[in-house]
Amino acid sequence: MQIDLNADLGEGFGAYRMGEDEALIGIISSANVACGFHAGDPLIMNNTAHATKAAGVDLGAHVGFPDLLGFGRRQMQVDPKELASYVVYQLGALAGMAAVAGHRLTHMSFHGALGNMAAADETLAEPLVAAVAAFDRDIIISSSSSQAIESAAARHGLRVATTFLADRAYDVNGLLVPRRMPNSVITDHDQVMLRLRQLLEDGSVTSYSGERIPMRTCSILLHGDTPGAAGMARDIRSEIERGGGEIVPISHLLN
Amino acid sequence: MQIDLNADLGEGFGAYRMGEDEALIGIISSANVACGFHAGDPLIMNNTAHATKAAGVDLGAHVGFPDLLGFGRRQMQVDPKELASYVVYQLGALAGMAAVAGHRLTHMSFHGALGNMAAADETLAEPLVAAVAAFDRDIIISSSSSQAIESAAARHGLRVATTFLADRAYDVNGLLVPRRMPNSVITDHDQVMLRLRQLLEDGSVTSYSGERIPMRTCSILLHGDTPGAAGMARDIRSEIERGGGEIVPISHLLN
Amino acid sequence: MQIDLNADLGEGFGAYRMGEDEALIGIISSANVACGFHAGDPLIMNNTAHATKAAGVDLGAHVGFPDLLGFGRRQMQVDPKELASYVVYQLGALAGMAAVAGHRLTHMSFHGALGNMAAADETLAEPLVAAVAAFDRDIIISSSSSQAIESAAARHGLRVATTFLADRAYDVNGLLVPRRMPNSVITDHDQVMLRLRQLLEDGSVTSYSGERIPMRTCSILLHGDTPGAAGMARDIRSEIERGGGEIVPISHLLN
Amino acid sequence: MQIDLNADLGEGFGAYRMGEDEALIGIISSANVACGFHAGDPLIMNNTAHATKAAGVDLGAHVGFPDLLGFGRRQMQVDPKELASYVVYQLGALAGMAAVAGHRLTHMSFHGALGNMAAADETLAEPLVAAVAAFDRDIIISSSSSQAIESAAARHGLRVATTFLADRAYDVNGLLVPRRMPNSVITDHDQVMLRLRQLLEDGSVTSYSGERIPMRTCSILLHGDTPGAAGMARDIRSEIERGGGEIVPISHLLN
Repeated sequence: MQIDLNADLGEGFGAYRMGEDEALIGIISSANVACGFHAGDPLIMNNTAHATKAAGVDLGAHVGFPDLLGFGRRQMQVDPKELASYVVYQLGALAGMAAVAGHRLTHMSFHGALGNMAAADETLAEPLVAAVAAFDRDIIISSSSSQAIESAAARHGLRVATTFLADRAYDVNGLLVPRRMPNSVITDHDQVMLRLRQLLEDGSVTSYSGERIPMRTCSILLHGDTPGAAGMARDIRSEIERGGGEIVPISHLLN
Repeated sequence: MQIDLNADLGEGFGAYRMGEDEALIGIISSANVACGFHAGDPLIMNNTAHATKAAGVDLGAHVGFPDLLGFGRRQMQVDPKELASYVVYQLGALAGMAAVAGHRLTHMSFHGALGNMAAADETLAEPLVAAVAAFDRDIIISSSSSQAIESAAARHGLRVATTFLADRAYDVNGLLVPRRMPNSVITDHDQVMLRLRQLLEDGSVTSYSGERIPMRTCSILLHGDTPGAAGMARDIRSEIERGGGEIVPISHLLN
Repeated sequence: MQIDLNADLGEGFGAYRMGEDEALIGIISSANVACGFHAGDPLIMNNTAHATKAAGVDLGAHVGFPDLLGFGRRQMQVDPKELASYVVYQLGALAGMAAVAGHRLTHMSFHGALGNMAAADETLAEPLVAAVAAFDRDIIISSSSSQAIESAAARHGLRVATTFLADRAYDVNGLLVPRRMPNSVITDHDQVMLRLRQLLEDGSVTSYSGERIPMRTCSILLHGDTPGAAGMARDIRSEIERGGGEIVPISHLLN
Repeated sequence: MQIDLNADLGEGFGAYRMGEDEALIGIISSANVACGFHAGDPLIMNNTAHATKAAGVDLGAHVGFPDLLGFGRRQMQVDPKELASYVVYQLGALAGMAAVAGHRLTHMSFHGALGNMAAADETLAEPLVAAVAAFDRDIIISSSSSQAIESAAARHGLRVATTFLADRAYDVNGLLVPRRMPNSVITDHDQVMLRLRQLLEDGSVTSYSGERIPMRTCSILLHGDTPGAAGMARDIRSEIERGGGEIVPISHLLN
């Protein structure tokens, strides 16, 4: 079994640091890098492009709302055509860093409130995914399970890598339970490892309401800004490898 | 004789408009488009990329300081390595827009205070030009005459298109007379046309101190935000064509 | 009869200009000045504070979302406690400019999407109005008719100046018809003057669906960024004065 | 002996944290709070205004360049009149937070590159100090020793609190040795305590070149973003109190 181990990197800004990028980069196989809208800046992007290249880690764009103050976690009502141009801008900026680092942009994902909105709304997913396709049809969209994203990607001939969030509860339809619900974020380390084991062995997850539901995934996602993210990443990596699994970058899986 | 007619476009931001883009785009052969740092935003960049593609106008990146409040006209002391990452970010963002519009990025120039600083300082020109080359060695650098830029470009195998500013005074060394000097900006229409005619017929310009100096150029630059820019552009175009000259995009000239 | 004539001023940013501030300032009696979030910058605020002081025009804060790119016209989901701090920040910044200009801050209003959201949602109006009261209980809130704003103001002991938008359609409840509806913005000059005359003579407005409804108001609002705003302002002023009305600043009316 | 213990607080932005504000606020007597230009945001400012009020700590404005990306540490060439408006904007915004928290603004200081430029250039210090005076003549300027600042303050009737940076080397004229020089920043804890003791007992500091020079000061400044700042603050406080000194807010000292 092959699977991708994925984390958000490059979420600092100027003098501000966030996350354990240096530790994570040695453990994961793919990175989602902030592009200067909700987090990240050109120098951090440049350094992260070089570091992922050196580590053999896939480089992806983590595309968000233009809201550094809210870290891209606040919904904004932006005209879809304009929002599509924000997506292209961010993809292009990180692709530029990739070019300079001798690396390439393999994938992208939607961050925070933009991700939640696009996953739940076909009329938004369509123009955003179309923009990704128009930019580069070889880009893989990394997303938690979403009908809106998947059908838009199918229409535009884009591949989707479905990610599994080991520390988040899912409802019976395979959608993420909103963060505001109690126990929607799973902080207990043993619980997280248990869920991971079930996913790897059985291809399923136990939902918020207790049903065992199938979960097709090719990537495990870690939040880079969670305290202890690097330790958790190391444990997940060990667990996968102990079971005979192999950690490979997202672009190798969907080739 | 073939020459390029060049203007700065896409200098609005959100609800703010600047310049006469719609009129200019039908007259010029190449555009320098702001990339969201000193001016411009993703939607304007996207629209300008499509409009230049439709009009057969070359698309270039106008790269500036991250200072929208100062329109990129204020010097900032930025570490050169960091500044190089700002250049790549802006080039990448506009190249992304070009890709989506079916167009391509042919050239770039440094805007405002960044342009002045790079033109006058080899230690700054070197890393910035190196960043352009690392991004894409086919990009042409459009610049008023500058030894610093030209020698850096030569080292990195980049082509330079020297631009002539018909409405600005030059000193005896062919450098622009700073804006703060009296009569450094030539606002009289007849004077501008006279200088243009001399350039076209004689390959020379009369300097601030009265000497006739040679001026090698392949491009006439217009400031898009000058009132009456479109009218001036039309007159310049007519003057060139009356003399049997042909207006061609910058990338055709340096092929 | 005394009435206030009110316009949004100071909506430029850096090199960008918007509106006909110089012309309007000689016609109106009160100004709402952008505070650097959706528009405006410190220098423009400073200049506008001095200009309103010199002209005897009341100075008010036009408080908006931190979204220059969207001109504050896009809804953002911001935590109310955080949003209240944005309100205080903007009030304080403009009050600082007033102090330096020997002027004082007499009133405030909510701009664009923030204004629409606050007017329609009591749970948002409450903390925002509370923040205004905590900043300075003498500040008048200028608002189109809104139960949410008015009741929050009553709770916190703040005065409200209800404004009439001569160029916007009202529904039968006295609320503004959304801009996306056909004919919600009245561009015909004669229509605007007719509505103004009806308001002045009869204290009523004819609603979108044809009913004549009462409209209590003490201020006529003009959009400073509408083309021809200054000409319209002049006509409105003449119309009021022809009928024996007197234009007075908002703070004189509610004293 | 009475002396003020002073630190920079509120230097986070949105989701980004910087410094050990919670620990420091219980040790220091005065705070310099970032105002949203080089660091800080409205919510953090609001929270810090409330926390300093609760702790009996003086609230001051730490005024910087509009350069969040560079943390205000990069020189910008801004027209002095415009720069003065930035100062007033930031003072006003924090004064607004003070009003809401039932606190008041007692002092201000210039941050980073702006501080360095103003301290060294009379033509810059003059308009900036004039702006502070025009805003509120009761504001104390907190500054490391600078002839430019002190003479401008004298002209405008403002009080100056000279601060001593225990972890920075001074030249023979009492000016800070630039950070780029070797050993200009003193990181050795024992060295810092030794310098502090000499200042307290003898009113002098040993300069970079070895001379003992007099140092008049009424405030010890700590950098809040230095790792271990809170521990250092605690030690400095103990040292002062051991010698019979008393830590009092800046406004009590200069009353």
